[in-house]
Amino acid sequence: MVSASLVIIGDEILSGRTQDKNTAYIAAWLNEAGIQLAEVRVVQDIEANIVAAVNTLRPRFDYVFTTGGIGPTHDDITAESVAAAFNLPLTTHPEAHRLLTEYYGAEDFTEARQRMSKTPEGAQLIDNSVSIAPGFQIENVFVMAGVPKIMEAMLETLRPRLKTGKKIWSQALTIHAPESKMAGKLGEIQGGMEGVSLGSYPFFRDGNIGTQIVVRSADKALIADATTQLVDYCAVQQYRHDGLAEIN
Amino acid sequence: MVSASLVIIGDEILSGRTQDKNTAYIAAWLNEAGIQLAEVRVVQDIEANIVAAVNTLRPRFDYVFTTGGIGPTHDDITAESVAAAFNLPLTTHPEAHRLLTEYYGAEDFTEARQRMSKTPEGAQLIDNSVSIAPGFQIENVFVMAGVPKIMEAMLETLRPRLKTGKKIWSQALTIHAPESKMAGKLGEIQGGMEGVSLGSYPFFRDGNIGTQIVVRSADKALIADATTQLVDYCAVQQYRHDGLAEIN
Repeated sequence: MVSASLVIIGDEILSGRTQDKNTAYIAAWLNEAGIQLAEVRVVQDIEANIVAAVNTLRPRFDYVFTTGGIGPTHDDITAESVAAAFNLPLTTHPEAHRLLTEYYGAEDFTEARQRMSKTPEGAQLIDNSVSIAPGFQIENVFVMAGVPKIMEAMLETLRPRLKTGKKIWSQALTIHAPESKMAGKLGEIQGGMEGVSLGSYPFFRDGNIGTQIVVRSADKALIADATTQLVDYCAVQQYRHDGLAEIN
Repeated sequence: MVSASLVIIGDEILSGRTQDKNTAYIAAWLNEAGIQLAEVRVVQDIEANIVAAVNTLRPRFDYVFTTGGIGPTHDDITAESVAAAFNLPLTTHPEAHRLLTEYYGAEDFTEARQRMSKTPEGAQLIDNSVSIAPGFQIENVFVMAGVPKIMEAMLETLRPRLKTGKKIWSQALTIHAPESKMAGKLGEIQGGMEGVSLGSYPFFRDGNIGTQIVVRSADKALIADATTQLVDYCAVQQYRHDGLAEIN
C-alpha cells in the first residue's frame, strides 16, 4: 500500500473563514491512484509549525503533499519553510525564473513576484498550467498551490512521478435503521473477513434516521460478498434499504 | 490568547468520500469565543494514531476537541483510544448508562449500544440533545460526535466550561488586481502595524483575477486603519475594489 499525508497551510481555514475543499479532492484523487491518504494536518502560517509538520510526516509516509502559501505576498512562507525543513538554502530556480520573466515581462517581474521563483536548492518544478507560478518537489514532498483550480492542475501533472498501488473500491448501502441496530452484524461481518473494511455513518435527514454503510476493499468480489451479507440481514430483520450504489 | 486544536477521527474523510464540514464550523465558533484554532489533524480510525494525536496536542494547547468515532459500531474506537491516551481504564459511566437505558428501554439496550455508555474513568459527560448518547470531557480533551448536527449541539453546551479570549474581528476587501500587484503594499502595511494580520487570497472566478484581503485583529480600530490604507492605495493605483464588507 502506498501512503501519503497532506499538510494544509492556511490561517484562513483555521479561522473558519474558508471551507477547505482540497482535502476531499486530493483524498479521492489519491484513492483512485491506489495511494492511501493516511493523515492530514492543517497548520498556521508559521515557519516552525510548517517545518515540524513536514519533518514529522516525510519519514512516515511515501509522500507528503502541501497546499497553500506559495504566492507572492508576505504571508506566503511555504517555500522558505520547506527549505528550512530540509536544511537547504532557498535559491532562485532558473526555470521558474525564466517562466515567470516570460509571463510578466522583465520590467513587471517585481520583487514580490520574484518570490515565486524561489525553491529549496535542487527542487524539481511542478507545472502550473493555470497561472504559471510553479509548485515544486523536493525528495518525497510535493508543494502545491492552495487555490483549488491550480492545485488540481498541479496534481494532474504529478501522476507519472508517483508510484501507485491498488485502487481501493467502495460501495455504499443506505439502510433505514439506526446504527445501533446494525452494529452487532457489522462487527460480525468485519470480524469474519480479511481485506475488507466496513465503515458505518449514521445520518439524520428530514426526520429520518439511518445508517450509511461503506464497504471498502481492493477486491470487488469481497465487497460483493460483504454487501450480500448486509442485504440478507436487512431482509431478515425487515429493515428497509435503498438500492445498492455502484462499486466505484 | 486561548488556543485549541482539533482531531478529526474519520476514515471516510481520508478516503475522500465525505467532505468534512466540522472544521469550518468549529473554527468559526471558537473564533467567536476568542479561542484560536491553531491546528487540525485528520487521523485514521486506528487507536495508536488517535493516541499519538491526542497526546501530542493536549500539552501544547489549552483545549483539544475531537470529532467522530463515538457511536455503537466496531469502527467507533475513540473512547477506548482516549482512555489509552490518558492511561485510564474505560469504564461504564453511570449517568450515561442511566440516560441510554431510559432512552432505549432496558431490553433494547443491547451490547452494541452499551458501548456508548463507556468513558475513560472520571470523565465528565457532554450532553447530546439530538440523539442522547453523550460525548465526554477528560482534562482538557473534549470528545464529540462526528455527525455535524450532534457535534454542534454538544459544542453549544460546552461554552460555560471554556475560558474565552478576545474575539478576533475581521474585515474582507475584494480587490480586482492580481495578488502580485498588492504584495509590496501588503508587506509594507503588515510590517508597520502590530496586532493586525493581513491575509491575502488570490481568486480566479469567471475569468476575473483578483485578491481577497482579510484584515484580522482584536481591535476594530486597527482593522479600520489598515483597510483605509488599502483603499487609498487602490485609489492611487486605479485598482477597482468591491465595497468594504462589514467588520465581523
